[in-house]
Amino acid sequence: MLIIDCHGHYTTAPPALEQYRAAQLAGAQPSPPRISDEAIRSSIETQQLRLQRERGGDLTLFSPRASAMGHHIGSEEISIAWSQVCNDLIAQVVGLYPDHFAGVCQLPQHAGAPLKASVAELRRCVLELGFVGCNLNPDPSGGHWTSPPLTDRYWYPIYEEMVELQVPAMVHVSASCNPAFHATGAHYINADTSAFMQLIEGDLFREFPGLHLIIPHGGGAVPYHWGRYRGLADMLKRPALSEHLMRNVFFDTCVYHQPGIDLLARVIPLENILFGSEMIGAVRGIDPQTRHYFDDTKRYIDALPLDDTQRALLFEGNARRVYPRLDARLNERSR
Amino acid sequence: MLIIDCHGHYTTAPPALEQYRAAQLAGAQPSPPRISDEAIRSSIETQQLRLQRERGGDLTLFSPRASAMGHHIGSEEISIAWSQVCNDLIAQVVGLYPDHFAGVCQLPQHAGAPLKASVAELRRCVLELGFVGCNLNPDPSGGHWTSPPLTDRYWYPIYEEMVELQVPAMVHVSASCNPAFHATGAHYINADTSAFMQLIEGDLFREFPGLHLIIPHGGGAVPYHWGRYRGLADMLKRPALSEHLMRNVFFDTCVYHQPGIDLLARVIPLENILFGSEMIGAVRGIDPQTRHYFDDTKRYIDALPLDDTQRALLFEGNARRVYPRLDARLNERSR
Repeated sequence: MLIIDCHGHYTTAPPALEQYRAAQLAGAQPSPPRISDEAIRSSIETQQLRLQRERGGDLTLFSPRASAMGHHIGSEEISIAWSQVCNDLIAQVVGLYPDHFAGVCQLPQHAGAPLKASVAELRRCVLELGFVGCNLNPDPSGGHWTSPPLTDRYWYPIYEEMVELQVPAMVHVSASCNPAFHATGAHYINADTSAFMQLIEGDLFREFPGLHLIIPHGGGAVPYHWGRYRGLADMLKRPALSEHLMRNVFFDTCVYHQPGIDLLARVIPLENILFGSEMIGAVRGIDPQTRHYFDDTKRYIDALPLDDTQRALLFEGNARRVYPRLDARLNERSR
Repeated sequence: MLIIDCHGHYTTAPPALEQYRAAQLAGAQPSPPRISDEAIRSSIETQQLRLQRERGGDLTLFSPRASAMGHHIGSEEISIAWSQVCNDLIAQVVGLYPDHFAGVCQLPQHAGAPLKASVAELRRCVLELGFVGCNLNPDPSGGHWTSPPLTDRYWYPIYEEMVELQVPAMVHVSASCNPAFHATGAHYINADTSAFMQLIEGDLFREFPGLHLIIPHGGGAVPYHWGRYRGLADMLKRPALSEHLMRNVFFDTCVYHQPGIDLLARVIPLENILFGSEMIGAVRGIDPQTRHYFDDTKRYIDALPLDDTQRALLFEGNARRVYPRLDARLNERSR
């Protein structure tokens, strides 16, 4: 059994990346930063790769730092250049450690702009760089929520491309520029909850039966309020959630304590849960109650009373089903 | 032991109330609607009161319909007149059924306006109408989140008055005019989550040690992500949550399935949990899995492995501690 972590960001990228971004936002048109393989190795081997090994992981679906996507900053052109630079860096990481990382791209979204540039970048990342998924930001305004719900036709071009290319999206916001919402403590979780409710209200998967969306951070508030969502679907005359959404929507396990993971596994069908940790990410400390890292989510799953088949689904099988290009890559490699 | 439901709204008010509101929003300056005791009786006895009896409740903290507060609609003057009408109606209900309901008021908030009118209405409701609490809307813009965080000095006038009068607030938004947020499926839950995170970031209760806030809907996403919040408090160099917030912040039990209530009781100290159902409210149907109403939350609590002391805290003691004016009223009545 492989241990596939579906949720990792390159939060430890070499400082040259941030310098590029600063220059870009200062109005310069900097050339893409040249970051040596050596610099990448030293940013990864002592951090993500070390922790992956220590915690018993095999492969991480790796994307640019989510909070730095910054779709609300600058112009669409800036978003395009920034996304290319960030995605190229992920490709460089994957090239160095093809057994340990697979690429997931950031999209050059920009609040209000059509998704044409995002479609082009998705194609480039999947077809040229070998990426297996993307992160889709449901609120490119950064906490002002000016975009239509995910079920709106505005989003269809990217869905069409995703289905065509057979790649799923993780629905993941970036930073918040709204002081009401702390990024990782409110905006992230709210976005997960809101996305799921948008999907309940609409009928997206009748239109796109082959579309797969991963809602991160354990599905926001959704599993904890599963009765509310089942009841609301009923009140809104939608089909049962099992039929309406759960063939297409998946939750990761980025829930940073045992009782939360226990609830997730009790409420959500195991077929819809993908192992994820988002390390090194939002919560980096050690839990004084357990003396282990909060984000060492594998420990919580190891403590679940699952049989081997269930465990294999959660750690490997579901990810390979939801990310067919990852599956193909792994099959090719094992030949 | 009394069964005190801390979270009920008058969602079944006679149609005259809505007619008043429609006239008001059409630009007329209608006189307050005259609603007969008879009309109130028939709106309550077959609904809230019947269900209270059937489910084994004793007393409900009763406030105007939350989704109709509509602080984002009209002007501050409209909000003032509307709040007075709604609160007077609650007072009429409580006058008819003093053993079954206690009053909680809506505040005439208006996005961007100072809280002077809210302070005045709170005083009127508590001192003249005998109310025991209020609902405070952290987002009077209705889903655009234009107000500063709850820890900002903007809110201090209402906190000062609450402490002075010894009444707590339930932090409760109204409807959403943002299509990204379904009211009861996203906006309510997001508001609960955001409010808690705002409180983590600030230091409100050092300023107001006597201030009590109830976060409804089981605390939004917070208990499910309790590890994340403990970890974020640590990363932000805040004190431990037990010390930083949990002397002042309480969660209700409006979580509409057994696994959610089990998690709440496992993670949050019992001293911080108040029985609540929000019936007849957001989710009105019957759960096909249990054949009971989703919002019959007493059943879930009855199924918890609690001893009598713990049960008494959750159903009565905590509410009497957090709502001292309710406690005084109950003491007086039992004399």
